[in-house]
Amino acid sequence: MDGEKIKVGAALLGVGVVGGGTYKIITEQREKIKKIYGVDLTVRHILERDKSKTDALGVDPSIVSTDIENVLNDDGIQVVAEFFGGTEPAKTFLIKCLMKGKSVVTSNKELVCKHFAELEDAARIGGGGLYFEASCVGGVPIVRTLTDAMQANDIREIKGIINGTTNYILSRMANDGTDYADALKTAQKLGYAEADPTADTEGYDAAYKLSILSSLAYNKRVPIDKIFREGINNVAAEDINFGKEFGMTLKLLGISKSIGGKIEARVHPAFIGDNHPLASVKGSFNAVYLKGNNVGDIMLYGRGAGDLPTGSAIVSDMVFASVNTRHRRYPFINETVSDGDFISNFSSKYYIRMKVTDKAGTLSKISGIFGRFGVSITTVLQKPPTDESGIVSIIFITHITNENAISEAVKAIKDLESVAEISNVIRVEE
Amino acid sequence: MDGEKIKVGAALLGVGVVGGGTYKIITEQREKIKKIYGVDLTVRHILERDKSKTDALGVDPSIVSTDIENVLNDDGIQVVAEFFGGTEPAKTFLIKCLMKGKSVVTSNKELVCKHFAELEDAARIGGGGLYFEASCVGGVPIVRTLTDAMQANDIREIKGIINGTTNYILSRMANDGTDYADALKTAQKLGYAEADPTADTEGYDAAYKLSILSSLAYNKRVPIDKIFREGINNVAAEDINFGKEFGMTLKLLGISKSIGGKIEARVHPAFIGDNHPLASVKGSFNAVYLKGNNVGDIMLYGRGAGDLPTGSAIVSDMVFASVNTRHRRYPFINETVSDGDFISNFSSKYYIRMKVTDKAGTLSKISGIFGRFGVSITTVLQKPPTDESGIVSIIFITHITNENAISEAVKAIKDLESVAEISNVIRVEE
Repeated sequence: MDGEKIKVGAALLGVGVVGGGTYKIITEQREKIKKIYGVDLTVRHILERDKSKTDALGVDPSIVSTDIENVLNDDGIQVVAEFFGGTEPAKTFLIKCLMKGKSVVTSNKELVCKHFAELEDAARIGGGGLYFEASCVGGVPIVRTLTDAMQANDIREIKGIINGTTNYILSRMANDGTDYADALKTAQKLGYAEADPTADTEGYDAAYKLSILSSLAYNKRVPIDKIFREGINNVAAEDINFGKEFGMTLKLLGISKSIGGKIEARVHPAFIGDNHPLASVKGSFNAVYLKGNNVGDIMLYGRGAGDLPTGSAIVSDMVFASVNTRHRRYPFINETVSDGDFISNFSSKYYIRMKVTDKAGTLSKISGIFGRFGVSITTVLQKPPTDESGIVSIIFITHITNENAISEAVKAIKDLESVAEISNVIRVEE
Repeated sequence: MDGEKIKVGAALLGVGVVGGGTYKIITEQREKIKKIYGVDLTVRHILERDKSKTDALGVDPSIVSTDIENVLNDDGIQVVAEFFGGTEPAKTFLIKCLMKGKSVVTSNKELVCKHFAELEDAARIGGGGLYFEASCVGGVPIVRTLTDAMQANDIREIKGIINGTTNYILSRMANDGTDYADALKTAQKLGYAEADPTADTEGYDAAYKLSILSSLAYNKRVPIDKIFREGINNVAAEDINFGKEFGMTLKLLGISKSIGGKIEARVHPAFIGDNHPLASVKGSFNAVYLKGNNVGDIMLYGRGAGDLPTGSAIVSDMVFASVNTRHRRYPFINETVSDGDFISNFSSKYYIRMKVTDKAGTLSKISGIFGRFGVSITTVLQKPPTDESGIVSIIFITHITNENAISEAVKAIKDLESVAEISNVIRVEE
């Protein structure tokens, strides 16, 4: 910096919610960024079909178009921020920008997750940088932490609440005692969940983020198809209530670990102890735990979404990309990975809720099967029947075992005549 | 990076606890840092008087000396990490290194706090960078967050548990019900507190860190003499117990705010609600809350001290300084500040514990005085007398008021005949 200012021209591809927030922040923060960071950042072009959006922001119409060539051919544009979402045309446009030597900033987690290698190849060839802080956990600087603060660590584990929609729904269920369907409806009404909530509720959104964060943490590509994924749609109010009796809170967690050179990565509902710092992360807040071999445990907490928190991460990346001429590279991203690099039969404790006929010998038979598959039980809870059906719920909590053992044991238990239903199987984290 | 590696030579000034941890980390992480960050980092010289320390690390004796000239005259050394502590000779040595164009990395919070401007001036002249992530909250990347992730925010507030020793002592008092002196002895026995604990218990250490973090957050110099400071030595087991009755936890907090262009900065014991995320930060862990106008609330949590966590931050800075050719500058650091730039009569709620004679009219007189000074009371707790003395404890908790009003009111109340003692006045944070 040293007094002289770097003049940086930016293009925004789309000014919807986050793009609009980004435009506002650039306008608001321009003088400060110039003074403190030595970067004179101006928006030189906006791609946007919807004139009402650019008008609402007070953008000079002469810098708005729908033609990417206007961005590609303007040598005064060094940084391009993308807000289209989805993979196309975002991917094609950004690769063209990168090949031209422009740096790219994006919050598009699906794109980065699925096409990290192609984008990074284009960035390396063009000489620009690929920045995606905003793709993971909004304004919380988890990407910057992994890329620029953990250089001295072997990261051993990531554990996080990385999807606000599901955390809002589960918090609601826990507070109000409502069932999943009702909590989802409330979330949709308040704008925390989309009309089609699948991407959030079935864990895809969390899996994209876990893929990106894990790749950075372990310096190894962790493709989304190597991530075990289970959504929250099968969670019942009963499970949350039983969890409370055991001092546990239910969260949708993204978890990955590096164990003996192999990676384990999974997104699923999990019980955690009420005293665990992640248990107190409520509503639409997010938090990510990291375990490094030197730094120990650290946690970052904040808003995982929203126009201004995400815009804050976008503008941070724009400034960072402008100041740092040696862009971060990801030399591992083209290395091939195979099934053998990943652990699918991972270890965990389990909570198993089932409905059984309330008669002598049932518990003994079930316990026998658990024993046969090497699954040892730490806690059993059976309550007196509440009606005349003779059907009661039993909850088992296991010691650490593994996916294969549990799935075999549950299959065999299901076949018992006295077992009416395996209602749910939920992993229990330490 | 782009394939070619940058060869970086480092010097370590001292290899005590943190310096030794740093040496180990550089050795352990060298290959990974070369592959992923493109930085080939080697230790070329160590300044250390104590041969047993370098021998224990297995350092080649030919690179060990006690003469700073060996560092200054070696053009192969681009990064110098300092572990002496205190201001001299650290300051003189580091300014010489910076003037030679070398980058400097330090965990020395006293030095950075007191001599930020001189160090930064030397860095600007020499062209190297000044890096001090390790000076604040060990391995938690709070400095990197403020310098490289919050560019798009006006930071409005910092609130943190930034001293592990006092947090350990207060956690111990809360858990065991012991008094301050006992908890301090335990902390000393376990190595969490020094033989002379003043720097920690009287809040100097926290004030150094708050000065550094606040300067970065508000882009304005916040000298330590502008920080209100009160230690934990006056905290009694009784205060912690009364706090529990009100659902509050006592912590030593570092707090600063930017209000209408003025800065308020203070280090003191404070009650926070048991549900506040900072309340669950136990033992020697640290955490810092930031409030940005765009990002909202974020929190970083982790170990605030220790050889490897702090060494992790040192090595991170060494790599960061090597990769980034445009070093972060601090253009505000030479701007003059005056009393008018700071708020000393800050606002807060207060907990006031006093001992009074248990007779009719006392409460009414005290309440009258609070009213006279505009202090409005939200909660009063008076317990029946426990002995024949006729003296009872009363606790008042106020609505938001300010330092001047409280200090005037307390002075007047102290003069009442029926008031035996003002036992403690502790701020209560939202």
